[in-house]
Amino acid sequence: MQKVDLPDYQIWVGAAREGLSAFLSAERYSRIFVLMDEHTASACYPLLPTEVIEQATPVRIRSGEVYKNIETCQEIWGALIAADADRNALLINLGGGVIGDMGGFCAATYKRGIDFVQVPTTLLSQVDASIGGKLGIDFRQIKNSIGVFVNPRAVFVDTGFLHTLSVRERRSGFAEIIKHALIADAAQWEMIKEKNQLVEVPEEDIVIASLRIKKAVVEQDPFERGLRKALNFGHTIGHAVESLALEGPEPLLHGEAIAVGMICESFLSYKKGFLHADALEEVSRWLIDWYAPRPLDEAAFPDYMTLMRNDKKNQSGGINFSLIGPPGTVHIDQYFSVEEIEESLRYFNAAIVPFQK
Amino acid sequence: MQKVDLPDYQIWVGAAREGLSAFLSAERYSRIFVLMDEHTASACYPLLPTEVIEQATPVRIRSGEVYKNIETCQEIWGALIAADADRNALLINLGGGVIGDMGGFCAATYKRGIDFVQVPTTLLSQVDASIGGKLGIDFRQIKNSIGVFVNPRAVFVDTGFLHTLSVRERRSGFAEIIKHALIADAAQWEMIKEKNQLVEVPEEDIVIASLRIKKAVVEQDPFERGLRKALNFGHTIGHAVESLALEGPEPLLHGEAIAVGMICESFLSYKKGFLHADALEEVSRWLIDWYAPRPLDEAAFPDYMTLMRNDKKNQSGGINFSLIGPPGTVHIDQYFSVEEIEESLRYFNAAIVPFQK
Repeated sequence: MQKVDLPDYQIWVGAAREGLSAFLSAERYSRIFVLMDEHTASACYPLLPTEVIEQATPVRIRSGEVYKNIETCQEIWGALIAADADRNALLINLGGGVIGDMGGFCAATYKRGIDFVQVPTTLLSQVDASIGGKLGIDFRQIKNSIGVFVNPRAVFVDTGFLHTLSVRERRSGFAEIIKHALIADAAQWEMIKEKNQLVEVPEEDIVIASLRIKKAVVEQDPFERGLRKALNFGHTIGHAVESLALEGPEPLLHGEAIAVGMICESFLSYKKGFLHADALEEVSRWLIDWYAPRPLDEAAFPDYMTLMRNDKKNQSGGINFSLIGPPGTVHIDQYFSVEEIEESLRYFNAAIVPFQK
Repeated sequence: MQKVDLPDYQIWVGAAREGLSAFLSAERYSRIFVLMDEHTASACYPLLPTEVIEQATPVRIRSGEVYKNIETCQEIWGALIAADADRNALLINLGGGVIGDMGGFCAATYKRGIDFVQVPTTLLSQVDASIGGKLGIDFRQIKNSIGVFVNPRAVFVDTGFLHTLSVRERRSGFAEIIKHALIADAAQWEMIKEKNQLVEVPEEDIVIASLRIKKAVVEQDPFERGLRKALNFGHTIGHAVESLALEGPEPLLHGEAIAVGMICESFLSYKKGFLHADALEEVSRWLIDWYAPRPLDEAAFPDYMTLMRNDKKNQSGGINFSLIGPPGTVHIDQYFSVEEIEESLRYFNAAIVPFQK
């Protein structure tokens, strides 16, 4: 069992069954609750330690980003109250980013805060959501607009859970690994490029390397005042793409939307002179090859702009971007006009044409 | 202008108009929002500095504890989102405990936290809610069951606002001043006893003395793990009395319910041998004389018990009390059986008989 140390807690990498057992034997909780959705209830819950399964109170919610809202929080808080959970209770969040973000938020606000641990079951949540203490829910169509910064007591990263995912979900999760490499680790980017697909369960070492990048960034800027914005690469446009797709007939997974965002924002990086034309082409080509994204509807460009303007990271009117230079380097706090942003969306639509069937 | 220094912020005691002006001139906020209800909008908002009134976006909610809920939070978050509030926005909470607790909670969770300042306009919120960072709302009938600990950037205590209150509200606010004296300041208790009514606006010195007691307790125990529970004297039974009265035709103000709680819990203090019979009689007599409370319905005793069991401070099944010894002293983490607690409610009913008209 490898451990990644953060200032307030540890990430245990290895079998969650073993890690959770060791963790719980050193703690004294009055009650244990496990938050899960229908998928993790059937595929992941049985992999938890026997003593958890025997003692815990399950709290089940419906899966999906559309349920990451204040109504589901009320179900979770209601379940804790109905079971008389006191301040010494523990909530285990068993699932992907939605479960971790929303379960963490509910724990951090229940009776002004009870302990929680994250057991991320998707690749995305293992390399991304498990570090940094960002918790929250979507509100009025704005992603993560209500939330807090609170760290879990521990995180258990077990790549064994990734076998329970669809190939599409594993590929989606890889988007954050790619992002981490592009903003901070040229060598990892070179290694990832060797892959001709992203659907297999990745090696534990790739996951740990990606975790360490995020850890290094977050530790220098826990409340996202500066450097941490680097992690936002691909996310300003990616979040807008994800939000709009969520309303349509073919929702995108988070990583699929972020892949689109990374292509558009690589173009913006090129426009600012941070990224060479060859590097732009290389990054775009790999992302299009791996993710085979659909074109963006030009008629919806104003809707994308509205969603971007509502992004939390904005200040004083402008739309804030984090861009890349040569792989492994990053430039935060970059601003563009509406025309330039729309140009990047058109660049994306043109770039994917040769790949469309 | 006197200032009470806390580790993270200051309480400015004096004219809020002057204090807020000085505070804002040293800060740079992108936007200013003022949360208020219909009462503070008409009676208190005009007393804010001209520059605030000219620039701020008002956010109005309905007054009353019954609206301290997740639905009203959604109105507040919605108003911030509708006005495009970014992370550099400031929320000024202008009102009593409900506005301060709920507005603070909404600010602390909006985009994972924006700055807020408290401008408490009731005596209760000036001496109690303005220190300690406890924020939250009621949920499923349980008071303050959802919330966080986050400190404001500043608090402005202006006793001038107290002239806008009814005599009943001023008397209610005095209950927390009495509680602070009973648990920590025998001299202040002696001074308060000299008063034959509690309906006038108190001297600034009494407010400051009370603030300093709360400050001393909170600084030693910011997250309510131990000593801070001292402040809970009168509140275990008082909260249950308040919650049940809220559903009936004659709701009690918070301080009125806490006065009832302090009488019952003084009896429990006597039962444990902490409080002498003479001191019990003295405390009860003064509280009954000042507050003229109504009897508790014996048929509802099981409902009081249910509400007490749901109190946040409980752990591992028991119902947790903070009791007093001789005025100025306190005993935390005391537990009683249902029978003993009900005996204290019957003591209260018997004690008020000679005072009933």
